[in-house]
Amino acid sequence: MEILNKKIRECGKAEKNGILKVDSFLNHQIDVALINELGKEFYRLFGNCGVTKILTVEASGIGVACITAQYFSVPVLFAKKNKPKSIADGVYAASVNSFTQATNYDITVSKNYLSKNDKVLIIDDFLAKGSALMGLISLIHEAGGAVVGAGVVIEKTFQSGGELIRSKGVRVEALAKIKSMTENSIEFED
Amino acid sequence: MEILNKKIRECGKAEKNGILKVDSFLNHQIDVALINELGKEFYRLFGNCGVTKILTVEASGIGVACITAQYFSVPVLFAKKNKPKSIADGVYAASVNSFTQATNYDITVSKNYLSKNDKVLIIDDFLAKGSALMGLISLIHEAGGAVVGAGVVIEKTFQSGGELIRSKGVRVEALAKIKSMTENSIEFED
Repeated sequence: MEILNKKIRECGKAEKNGILKVDSFLNHQIDVALINELGKEFYRLFGNCGVTKILTVEASGIGVACITAQYFSVPVLFAKKNKPKSIADGVYAASVNSFTQATNYDITVSKNYLSKNDKVLIIDDFLAKGSALMGLISLIHEAGGAVVGAGVVIEKTFQSGGELIRSKGVRVEALAKIKSMTENSIEFED
Repeated sequence: MEILNKKIRECGKAEKNGILKVDSFLNHQIDVALINELGKEFYRLFGNCGVTKILTVEASGIGVACITAQYFSVPVLFAKKNKPKSIADGVYAASVNSFTQATNYDITVSKNYLSKNDKVLIIDDFLAKGSALMGLISLIHEAGGAVVGAGVVIEKTFQSGGELIRSKGVRVEALAKIKSMTENSIEFED
C-alpha cells in the first residue's frame, strides 16, 4: 500500500536488531488519519467474508482494530497480556513469545466474547515471527470459531512468521511487506 | 450521557470490591458504535479548545482515544506501562498506582511526541482514585505542554479521583458518573 510504504520510508527507523521503529505513527503516537486509510483497505480485502468480530492483542493492535472495526460494523475484542482481577475466571488462554520485547507472556480472552458462531478477523500491527498471531488463532480455535484471516499493517517477510501462518491455511494480508532492512535503507516487496 | 448510562445499567456488573465490570463493551470487548457516540460527545465538550494531541495510557484507553481523535483530527499518543526496547531512551516518566489491579507501575512517553507547544486532551476509560490521570498530567507538565482537560468515560464519584484532579484546576468531563454501586444496583449522578 503506497501511502503506508511512503510513511515507513519517511518516518520508520530500522534498528540493528531487526526491529523497525514506527512509534511516530503506529505504536506509540498514532496517526489516526493514516490508520483510517488502512482500515478502509482491510475492509476492501475482507469485507465480503462475513466477519462477526475483530480480534487483536493489547496494546498496539487496539487502535488499528478499532478504526478498522468501524468499516465492518462489528465489535473489537482485545486479548489481554495479563489476567487482571476484573476479568472473569472463564478465559481462553495461549502462550506468546514477543520478538520485540524478548519475553514470553500469556494472552487471554473471556469465554463470554468468543464463540463457535464467530467468524473472526485478526488485526495486528506487526508480523515478525508470528507468535502473537499463532496465539490469537489458537484462542479462536479453542472457542470453536472460524478464522477469516489476519490483517497486519507491516509484515517483515525476511522473518518466518508469514510463512508459518500461511502454512496453516490462514489467509494473511499485509499492507506493507518489508523484505530487508539495514540501518539506512528499508526495502519493500513489490 | 443517557445512551452510556443505559448500556452500563444493562451490561455493567458491580463487583464487591468497588470494581465496575464493563468488559462487554468498553475494556475487553469494545462496542465501536457506542464509542463513536462517546467520541462525538468529547468533541462537543472540548472541540473549541485548540487540542493538538490526545493522550491516553495503554491498554483500555487506546480504543476510545483513537475513535475520539477522528473528530479532532489530531494524533493519539498512548503512554506505555513498561519501557520496551523499541522506545528510545528519552522519555518522560511518572509513577501510577492502579486501583483495579492493585499494583504500581511507571508510565512513559517519548520526548519526541510531547512538547511545550502541545495542548493536550487526556482521554481514559475510568476515573476512580485518579492516579493514572495524575500521572498523565505530570507527563504533559514535564514536557511543558498545556492540559486542556480530561475526558473520561466513567467516573466513580464515590471515589476520590475526580475531586483530586479538579482541585488541581484541571477540567474533567465524565460521560457517566456513578455515585454508588452495590452488587445489584448502580446509581448515577443526575
